[in-house]
Amino acid sequence: MRRPEILMTPGPTPVPPEVLLAQASPIVYHRGPGYGALLREVTEGLKYVLQTENDVVVYTSSGTGGMESAVANLFSPGDRVLVVSVGYFGDRFVQICKAYGLDVRVLEYQWGQVARAEDLARALEREGPVKAVLCQHSETSTGVVNDVAALGAVCREAGVPLVVDAISGVGAVELKTDAWGVDVAIGASQKALMGSPGIAFLSVSPKAWEMAAESRCPKFYFSWEKTLEAYRRPDPESPFTPAVSVLLGVREALRMIREEGLEAVLERHALLSRATKEGVRALGLELFGEHPERSHAVTAVRVPEGLDGKAIVREVRRRYGVILAGGQGPLAGKIFRIGHLGYYDGLDVVRALSALELTLEHLGYPVKRGSAVGAAEEVLARG
Amino acid sequence: MRRPEILMTPGPTPVPPEVLLAQASPIVYHRGPGYGALLREVTEGLKYVLQTENDVVVYTSSGTGGMESAVANLFSPGDRVLVVSVGYFGDRFVQICKAYGLDVRVLEYQWGQVARAEDLARALEREGPVKAVLCQHSETSTGVVNDVAALGAVCREAGVPLVVDAISGVGAVELKTDAWGVDVAIGASQKALMGSPGIAFLSVSPKAWEMAAESRCPKFYFSWEKTLEAYRRPDPESPFTPAVSVLLGVREALRMIREEGLEAVLERHALLSRATKEGVRALGLELFGEHPERSHAVTAVRVPEGLDGKAIVREVRRRYGVILAGGQGPLAGKIFRIGHLGYYDGLDVVRALSALELTLEHLGYPVKRGSAVGAAEEVLARG
Repeated sequence: MRRPEILMTPGPTPVPPEVLLAQASPIVYHRGPGYGALLREVTEGLKYVLQTENDVVVYTSSGTGGMESAVANLFSPGDRVLVVSVGYFGDRFVQICKAYGLDVRVLEYQWGQVARAEDLARALEREGPVKAVLCQHSETSTGVVNDVAALGAVCREAGVPLVVDAISGVGAVELKTDAWGVDVAIGASQKALMGSPGIAFLSVSPKAWEMAAESRCPKFYFSWEKTLEAYRRPDPESPFTPAVSVLLGVREALRMIREEGLEAVLERHALLSRATKEGVRALGLELFGEHPERSHAVTAVRVPEGLDGKAIVREVRRRYGVILAGGQGPLAGKIFRIGHLGYYDGLDVVRALSALELTLEHLGYPVKRGSAVGAAEEVLARG
Repeated sequence: MRRPEILMTPGPTPVPPEVLLAQASPIVYHRGPGYGALLREVTEGLKYVLQTENDVVVYTSSGTGGMESAVANLFSPGDRVLVVSVGYFGDRFVQICKAYGLDVRVLEYQWGQVARAEDLARALEREGPVKAVLCQHSETSTGVVNDVAALGAVCREAGVPLVVDAISGVGAVELKTDAWGVDVAIGASQKALMGSPGIAFLSVSPKAWEMAAESRCPKFYFSWEKTLEAYRRPDPESPFTPAVSVLLGVREALRMIREEGLEAVLERHALLSRATKEGVRALGLELFGEHPERSHAVTAVRVPEGLDGKAIVREVRRRYGVILAGGQGPLAGKIFRIGHLGYYDGLDVVRALSALELTLEHLGYPVKRGSAVGAAEEVLARG
């Protein structure tokens, strides 16, 4: 049997059959009522999951393209910005800002820590006026989730716009874009939204539009202005040929999310996260990162003494087809990550934990068979 | 009956069922042997259609993203470049170069004209040293095809690198990237390659890599260096999460092209182009643009006196579901365009011509029924 890949990574995540089938539909021409209805429904669905009334712009790109779009549209060379970095994707924001010639200040944490509102307040005082604060919602590399509400309150107080990479967070972890004062929230199709990769999107507040009007960073493909102008035609359009098939899938996925209801979706992620974490703990393993109880998208696990983290990831994939993610950067080999954001239910977690039990046993780690699965079942049964 | 859309536009073009079905396959994780094999096969297939041994980099974006990638990776602000513009997409190159602060000189033609090698030679003398020449292969807006071989010879003679937007040309019209000295050729998935939109690609010559090493334009997502570095890992990767589903489709489409053989594919496009053009002429309509015999991707037609070009496009879509393209920019309402690049055979052209006959008749244009179809059949029967 050619074994299917069982994705338990923090993206891309498994795509529901309904979504895959939608991707097999004939191409909808991107000028006209068919595409207009598609793009409008997708955009409205994205507003729903982002909990925003702001404009949402949609791009054919990875999430990183969305991050770059925020930088290119908001700033001008030499602008001072403050990046709050708690891991790999915080560093990516730093790199993108540097690529565009910004004056980048960094509030940097050890990987695994979460950002603290009081640190942000002090950093804003220390660094003097900055054009914006950029941070992650869920930092995929460590699994930690920042308290965006608290960070947003500090920014509002200081009168500084807030840009949030919510790529692995939105749809898995609560994100109240408008209520928390997030000026730009960035997401992507292949995470909790259950779509295929290829679509990035951003919510843009009125304040962010004002900044965009002043921006002198070069941009063309990722121009928000061009995107909004095309969206406002009688039949909404994309300025450049969009990934129609991926969007057809995303529409279907967003319909599924609306049907389940955002609150229920978020509760499901919380439940699966608890089940995964209890399972991992029952094996005597330690969770990685601060406030794991917030980490509804990803469970990061410390590799136990004497084991090789890369071997765990390799063997669980080789032996059972279950794809976990290793550690990135300084955490390579030191942690592994289990993704449970998107199209997952309880037994998907059970399956992954079973593969983990058997793999750890194979690698010589003492395992009581069924212990992780049992602990997860306990959580799931309580609901 | 809810009528299917019959795409006869110059992109996106109809996607074969085999390709659509491939897009419904489960997601392949983008780190590992499965994706490595996918990206390698796609990249090798793209080299085959581009007739190049140069590196090919693949992006999740529209073709315009590929054009921007060329500009951002090759140049630095203030660099002088020469854009040869024969229409809408030539103008787009100008806009992108200006967005990046280049010193843009333009060899501009009236829309419908093709570029002339002797004009290029004179322009290169007149403008002094330029970093590169940028031009279109098939200019989608007018249907005309530039003689890239001749333009390439001029560039080689002058020692100036050549960047070619071959988005609507590659796979439909002969393009010998290496033999003609094209340093960068840009293509996209949704044209003659029969894929869904969402993938752009570029071939990069050693000379272009040298230029990229010097470039100071800001870039991150579209960085060639990052893309090549990821591709050269033991299992080829993309630096940022790629549109896996679209790539699964593109792989299938490239397999179909290899099976048919590039030469046969190009001959088929030539045949369909002749059939379309003879059909149009049989209606007493006039072809638009110089050297229509080269325009194997698109047939541009002058709107006859007394008729409204927009009405033709609107009615043929409303009445028969056949989607033609109108004129862009100064040609709005003055021409309409029939695309025949990609997954088309003779009877697709016949169907479109029949819809055109009936629509023109409806709009009050004198039509002898069957005349366009008959003329096309004549071409197809001769083969």
